[in-house]
Amino acid sequence: MTDQIKPLEGIRVLDLSHVLAGPYMTLFLAQNGAEVIKIENPEGGEMARRLLVKTADGRSVDHVAAYLNRGKKGLGLNLRSDEGKAIFRELVKASDIVVENFTPKTMRKLGFGYEELKAINPRIIYTSLSGFGHDDIYPSPMMDRPAFNLIAQAMGGIMDITGEENGPPMATGVALGDLVAGVFALSGTLLALQHRDRTGLGQHVDISMYDCLASFSQRAVLRTFLTGDVPTRGRDSRENPLGTFKVKDGYVVMTLMGDPMWTRFCDLVGRPELKEDPGFHPDSARGARYDSSIRPLLEDWAKDKTRSEVVELFAAADLPAAPVQDAADILACPQLRSRRMIEEIDDPVRGRMVYTGNPIKLSNVEEYPASPAPAIGANTEALLSGLLGLSAEDISALRAARAI
Amino acid sequence: MTDQIKPLEGIRVLDLSHVLAGPYMTLFLAQNGAEVIKIENPEGGEMARRLLVKTADGRSVDHVAAYLNRGKKGLGLNLRSDEGKAIFRELVKASDIVVENFTPKTMRKLGFGYEELKAINPRIIYTSLSGFGHDDIYPSPMMDRPAFNLIAQAMGGIMDITGEENGPPMATGVALGDLVAGVFALSGTLLALQHRDRTGLGQHVDISMYDCLASFSQRAVLRTFLTGDVPTRGRDSRENPLGTFKVKDGYVVMTLMGDPMWTRFCDLVGRPELKEDPGFHPDSARGARYDSSIRPLLEDWAKDKTRSEVVELFAAADLPAAPVQDAADILACPQLRSRRMIEEIDDPVRGRMVYTGNPIKLSNVEEYPASPAPAIGANTEALLSGLLGLSAEDISALRAARAI
Repeated sequence: MTDQIKPLEGIRVLDLSHVLAGPYMTLFLAQNGAEVIKIENPEGGEMARRLLVKTADGRSVDHVAAYLNRGKKGLGLNLRSDEGKAIFRELVKASDIVVENFTPKTMRKLGFGYEELKAINPRIIYTSLSGFGHDDIYPSPMMDRPAFNLIAQAMGGIMDITGEENGPPMATGVALGDLVAGVFALSGTLLALQHRDRTGLGQHVDISMYDCLASFSQRAVLRTFLTGDVPTRGRDSRENPLGTFKVKDGYVVMTLMGDPMWTRFCDLVGRPELKEDPGFHPDSARGARYDSSIRPLLEDWAKDKTRSEVVELFAAADLPAAPVQDAADILACPQLRSRRMIEEIDDPVRGRMVYTGNPIKLSNVEEYPASPAPAIGANTEALLSGLLGLSAEDISALRAARAI
Repeated sequence: MTDQIKPLEGIRVLDLSHVLAGPYMTLFLAQNGAEVIKIENPEGGEMARRLLVKTADGRSVDHVAAYLNRGKKGLGLNLRSDEGKAIFRELVKASDIVVENFTPKTMRKLGFGYEELKAINPRIIYTSLSGFGHDDIYPSPMMDRPAFNLIAQAMGGIMDITGEENGPPMATGVALGDLVAGVFALSGTLLALQHRDRTGLGQHVDISMYDCLASFSQRAVLRTFLTGDVPTRGRDSRENPLGTFKVKDGYVVMTLMGDPMWTRFCDLVGRPELKEDPGFHPDSARGARYDSSIRPLLEDWAKDKTRSEVVELFAAADLPAAPVQDAADILACPQLRSRRMIEEIDDPVRGRMVYTGNPIKLSNVEEYPASPAPAIGANTEALLSGLLGLSAEDISALRAARAI
């Protein structure tokens, strides 16, 4: 059934990126068969190496570097040294894609802006991830502003509509700014590969965290433009009854759409008199009363029931509900195990590790357990001799010069 | 500078999808040069057609259908009729990609599962988006469960870590389940195109909303596995001072990392005595006191200052901060206008409309204003005669049979 050729077989990636958006994106390139060469300063590596957790048995594990960099190769290279720069230029000639998520201008200051690398290799695809975008395709007035996940969530319109109706705006608990930009950058890089197949030329792929989250705010932006009415926190829950409620051991979400569901719901929670109650018709009236009436009623009904009991009872009544899961639930979920979305591997340095898998499931591509994340420069010698033909003496000289 | 060849020039897409994940994904295919043919039942079309807002001047506008389907062609086709099925099979022979986001099994019941379409055209790429995934690549025990955005956010671990530390779990205000699955499906489809270029064969791309959001929970899952300690709401804000605070006209976010930032911050807010206060050292101590001490101090300092005044003062002190923006702010943002992320077009049916643009910025591909979303079946006759060579009589007969 499956085919041992991977989608990105033969594609070589020079990965200069650091936590989080860039490495998350190149992880998918690696999982789909590209040769991803993680380039780090040989002294200390990138900042993810210093994000440690203390394990239950007292070890310190660089968990973020570990999960982001599995399946990649490690090359230690000092890009500020002349020798390191020369090596990097040679690698660009032999590669397809460069990925970086420095502050804009950093790569230009190093002499490695897109225009410089294009002069070395016109087929190179140069993917940048940043807070507000670079300025070579479009002017980017905010280019130099500080940028990180929380700023992207704030400016992109996500926080303003997240949270309780009368509470403050809330950030989403995952690093949405980075993660979403990472997935868009993946698509952008693959589009540039398609374009190169048609034109023979590479290009700059310029991804901004702010742009990506603004795209997610599309509906609110258009609604505001058309109606003059700006969506606020809690607004969606007023269109039909939809939301979260507390049960014995946690929380459950549910939604109801239309009168037949409402009828089944009233029977389920033992309140048949509400079926025809005009205060609960139509759907939007129920939506408006979710917090004031429906949630309290549900919480009273569910106070002695567990999440799984509640979800089963909803399912038996053909009504949609699901548990609010935490990371431990995800870790234990048979659905995710079945789909190889939870993958355990033995790392020779870090011990037993668990990773969430690749959500892109392809019927003709066999998934294989990822190799562990490399140490800083783990493959430096093999890469320099294999790709650039450097001799053992050349490599010793570079090491003496602290270029690798 | 730019090249008129688009990345997906010559790629034809049969788009059977409906709100939200599928059409959001095919929008990017259209924006990058694919010919996207939106196939809808000629009677009534898909459900987005019925999501209306009332404009300031009293018109009803199908805003969701409008923003999701710009740049696509419209084909009315009744897939339940024999004639409609025959037409669809012919279209599959002439196309590259099929996209669907029905409940799993729906397409198989129609006779259009991946295996059936592969028998018609082995080069076809068949992209499915669903809540829990299909079962032809991996077993999918939860396949038949109801699925929509809120359920994906709940099960994927996003809600549990979003919200106030002592409040209930919160959903993100945008439809993260659909939108993130859409962007992963875009990448998956582009990977399948790369794979087809190498093997000559299409495949099934099976994207699950739950899988996609579980991938975003990667860090929490690994941390739980290693430490036995499950991340909870509010946890991240305890690692360094980072969060939201109220100002005169809204909210601002900020973060501080390290002692030099803390020193500048104390001067900025007029509290120099805190610079050396041992209760505020190190960073994690400040993080732990964000809600109890730092936020109140900031809110007192900022109570007579606007968002933009506060952000300017932070910038002058070389400290990162940004306004929490709503949809009206996004609409007015010069940065987004400059990067063509806010695009106004005149729609002949709907009047002046505003769209968020394509966040994938490519240096060699010229962006052009999208054509408006088609009416149901707007291009039916041209497509059937152009692609399949049907005569006016054939088309009349199909119309009489209510197949188109």
